[in-house]
Amino acid sequence: MARPRTKPPRIQIEHVWPQIDCGRYPVKRTVGEPVEVWADVFRDGHEVLGAAVRYRRVRDRRWREIEMRHQSADRWTATFAPEACGRYEFAIAAWVDRFASWRWELQRKVDAGQGDLSSELAEGALLYGARSLTVEEALAAHEPDRSELVVSPSLYVEVDPEIARFSAWYELFPRSWGGFAGVTEVLPDLAELGFDVLYLPPIHPIGHTNRKGPNNSLTASADDPGSPWAIGSGVGGHDAIAPELGTERGFRTLVTRARELGIQICLDFAIQCSPDHPWLEQHPEWFYRRPDGTLKYAENPPKRYQDIYNVNFDTEDWEELWKAQLAVVLRWVRLGVTVFRVDNPHTKPVPFWEWLIREVRAENPDVIFLSEAFTRPAMMATLAKAGFNQSYTYFTWRNTKGELQQYLTELGQSELPQFFRPNFFANTPDILPEYLQRGGRPAFEARLVLAATLSPAYGIYSGFEHHENVPVREGSEEYLDSEKYELKHRALDGPLLPLIRSVNEIRRANRALQRLDNIRFLETENDQLIAYVKLERDPPNAVVVCVNLDPVLPQEGVCVIPVELGLPPAFDAEELLSEETFSWRIGRNYLRLGPGQSHILRVA
Amino acid sequence: MARPRTKPPRIQIEHVWPQIDCGRYPVKRTVGEPVEVWADVFRDGHEVLGAAVRYRRVRDRRWREIEMRHQSADRWTATFAPEACGRYEFAIAAWVDRFASWRWELQRKVDAGQGDLSSELAEGALLYGARSLTVEEALAAHEPDRSELVVSPSLYVEVDPEIARFSAWYELFPRSWGGFAGVTEVLPDLAELGFDVLYLPPIHPIGHTNRKGPNNSLTASADDPGSPWAIGSGVGGHDAIAPELGTERGFRTLVTRARELGIQICLDFAIQCSPDHPWLEQHPEWFYRRPDGTLKYAENPPKRYQDIYNVNFDTEDWEELWKAQLAVVLRWVRLGVTVFRVDNPHTKPVPFWEWLIREVRAENPDVIFLSEAFTRPAMMATLAKAGFNQSYTYFTWRNTKGELQQYLTELGQSELPQFFRPNFFANTPDILPEYLQRGGRPAFEARLVLAATLSPAYGIYSGFEHHENVPVREGSEEYLDSEKYELKHRALDGPLLPLIRSVNEIRRANRALQRLDNIRFLETENDQLIAYVKLERDPPNAVVVCVNLDPVLPQEGVCVIPVELGLPPAFDAEELLSEETFSWRIGRNYLRLGPGQSHILRVA
Repeated sequence: MARPRTKPPRIQIEHVWPQIDCGRYPVKRTVGEPVEVWADVFRDGHEVLGAAVRYRRVRDRRWREIEMRHQSADRWTATFAPEACGRYEFAIAAWVDRFASWRWELQRKVDAGQGDLSSELAEGALLYGARSLTVEEALAAHEPDRSELVVSPSLYVEVDPEIARFSAWYELFPRSWGGFAGVTEVLPDLAELGFDVLYLPPIHPIGHTNRKGPNNSLTASADDPGSPWAIGSGVGGHDAIAPELGTERGFRTLVTRARELGIQICLDFAIQCSPDHPWLEQHPEWFYRRPDGTLKYAENPPKRYQDIYNVNFDTEDWEELWKAQLAVVLRWVRLGVTVFRVDNPHTKPVPFWEWLIREVRAENPDVIFLSEAFTRPAMMATLAKAGFNQSYTYFTWRNTKGELQQYLTELGQSELPQFFRPNFFANTPDILPEYLQRGGRPAFEARLVLAATLSPAYGIYSGFEHHENVPVREGSEEYLDSEKYELKHRALDGPLLPLIRSVNEIRRANRALQRLDNIRFLETENDQLIAYVKLERDPPNAVVVCVNLDPVLPQEGVCVIPVELGLPPAFDAEELLSEETFSWRIGRNYLRLGPGQSHILRVA
Repeated sequence: MARPRTKPPRIQIEHVWPQIDCGRYPVKRTVGEPVEVWADVFRDGHEVLGAAVRYRRVRDRRWREIEMRHQSADRWTATFAPEACGRYEFAIAAWVDRFASWRWELQRKVDAGQGDLSSELAEGALLYGARSLTVEEALAAHEPDRSELVVSPSLYVEVDPEIARFSAWYELFPRSWGGFAGVTEVLPDLAELGFDVLYLPPIHPIGHTNRKGPNNSLTASADDPGSPWAIGSGVGGHDAIAPELGTERGFRTLVTRARELGIQICLDFAIQCSPDHPWLEQHPEWFYRRPDGTLKYAENPPKRYQDIYNVNFDTEDWEELWKAQLAVVLRWVRLGVTVFRVDNPHTKPVPFWEWLIREVRAENPDVIFLSEAFTRPAMMATLAKAGFNQSYTYFTWRNTKGELQQYLTELGQSELPQFFRPNFFANTPDILPEYLQRGGRPAFEARLVLAATLSPAYGIYSGFEHHENVPVREGSEEYLDSEKYELKHRALDGPLLPLIRSVNEIRRANRALQRLDNIRFLETENDQLIAYVKLERDPPNAVVVCVNLDPVLPQEGVCVIPVELGLPPAFDAEELLSEETFSWRIGRNYLRLGPGQSHILRVA
């Protein structure tokens, strides 16, 4: 180990938090959401130290600074709140305050009753540039000093629009609603129901070769519309709009009207091609061919997707492939799309996503990406670290009280909440969960309330409000006569809409429901009853949610409010769905809920 | 974010363990102690991966490799055991196995009953360089392949001699034993008592100016020997030997004889000077002077050390100062010293220690350093990370059952055991703990057993075996008539020696007592009774220790053996101090211990 050429700093800055994988990835926040920074700052000897957090938007020149507060032992803390979207950087600055150090030692000597302090006072006079000093003057003197200043390496924060954290999503197939024009007409109703994001499966031309028929059959009749995920035809590929949905102008009108109503349009981004996609001719080198010259269609044995070819990210022409994908995303961004739901990102290289998302967000920091990766936890987490602003989860497969409590604990623990934002979809075109199949309407009601109150971001796929629950066959999560392969005629008239409207209103009115990690589960003395509280301290907002998970029978139990929550001994609990008010107290509160019924109680 | 110029690897290697502060510092092991390595290794898509740990001594060219075992989900593991002292490096290598990937997909298709596999088999034939393949041939074929090989950044392991982890220490002032000659005579007895390290306070010439008299008084008579920590006189400084102790030849004899008996000599390294130290004349710029020209003696108000000047590490001449300290250490290494106990390292710069220890160990990897930093946890941990191989602890101030359990839990948790090795000294020349002052011989017996069985490294300062326990005054931890300022006449004849010998024998015979982090506390149903088990699996060794913390009264209780330990339902518990055997069982076992008495039970 070579002797350092300059005197190395004596001040140590350690355990800076928040940081992910040693600063390899940024943490995430939404605009205005505080970043609470912690660090251990210390030095050999007895000098008095000071510390500050410096931060700035990466594109800005000027640093801002907040002094850190000395918390305990060597732990310091400060909080800042980023005020715009984009990437921020922060670092810890620490220094010796020579004046304070000298005063502190003098004070200890005075306290110890030491007599002759003339040497000390002469030292202080020199420090302060004074001719002489009395003990009283010395102890009263204050002058800021930053000697031995050191600055830690920068860490990063990716700042997103609020919908990345808190939003209600609705998914529909535009072709079932009369294309862009029909969807535009229904936008005011969706806004009135309280949805923030409208997610559209791919809107591009659909291939003809190997087009799938009803219920994923291998033969399609001339009338069958095909799966929107079989992207590309003679009309065009990922850049183009399926003519049956409308025109680019119609799409612009849809996006503009949505924005006026406070709704963001989310497009599906599925990097895959039908056999008729223009890329197969333009870029044959982007596709994997077997030795016999055949293209290999997508498959995940025993599943086969004969209407879809995946691109080959191992191609020598990978740079062009990457650029083309970026161009696709930027085309839709220019048309006003601010949200992308990415299909199967875990089958494409992680470095590709990290690059693509940063490229898009460098100029468009309000654009966010939702990862549809149903895979093992490490890959799901890494996609989020690499840039995805939201992620699908295992929520649809977590149904019992134990499963839900354990899963929420996993999502809220360790460093995961710093970068992984779940979106609890209650159903999707691919997932009709068994619980919904068997439980009927009460099951849908329970799962809606769970999705919307457990997670600040949640979504439903149309048909949910009609509690559609018939699978293609026993044991499958696919819908019978799935909209993926057939034309439906849909309207916004399901019986669950009033509950959905209420729940969305309640979410907006209660800040406690707008975060994930403020949850605490409550004892109910009944395994079919799940209860939890979400708490905000400033301003105070406490919401208790109780759900009967049994879709068949009413269930009785209690909801135990523990002392540590700091609620009053007795309080009014306003049930926000029924507008009844209960008298609750710390301790056990009797509870009886009908099948699938919920209470959402605001503590008055 | 610029597009990478080469195709970035698709394989991700994450959460490599063990690592400290993102690899900034090495983890520690002793020779032969296993390094269990963990990592998450994964890739997009469905390829079959392989992984290995590569490791080598940093000074070696050749890497060795151990294949990692796939543990669960994306977690892989492998273990290696460094076989020599010095710095090792390791890294994770991961790759795609194309053959295995292809076979795995083929197998899934066969399982799914897919009919025509001719394309797949043609693909496989190309891969294997065969003209054609049958399904049976394909599934039976094995060929190792490492495509897409990636290697993680290196992490480091500092490998120490076994005494860094497991050792019994004895501290004595040579002047009280007849100098080097007298100490050499007593070495066989110390070896026979089971001590591994003999620690000597500074052996250098002691200053005359401001020499302290008995009980730290400001005036010394001509006969007073002075504190060994007031280093340096006209005879010499840190390089020199105090004439009253003997000659360099005498010191060599001591070191050689000790080594023959299996004892390492530990010297004190205290970077501080008496007013008569040669450095004050030779290097006046190494010392801090007040504006009035006075040198500032060491003080920690209200404590004052008028016989000691600290060196000023802020000196412009810091490089020479650093080099001089290294030269001092290397001088004693050349004389056979392999252990240094460093006085107050937390008042010197951390980077200095990191540099010094690496410089010394680069050529002398069997040399270890013990940090005497009684300060806040962050600095104590950082000194260990920076290189100290062992550390003093708060053990002397942890006396109740609750304090002991909490402290051992702290020392065993998180990443601390990867780099921080406690040495539980039961007393020191500076610390006569209140518990020993008040509890008399039973307290000494209890603390001896606690120190020696809680921590694999422990020590006592001479006088302990005589249960010397009179403080200089009420409320002080200083000894009355402390050996630091007076000449004593000591011999190895204290009444606690038989217990000390037994305990050291038991430690050597039971591998379970040679580690720190294998401890589990046991229920006793009595706050005065502490009990814990230490377990080794391979070969099996279980030792249960029960100590009565009450130095005045006998105490009754139980020792509860939990089922999870995996011990037999009923077993013989051999009490190793008394050589009695008890019939114990899983569950509650009755316990009665006299004041300060211990049981050390080996499970048969």
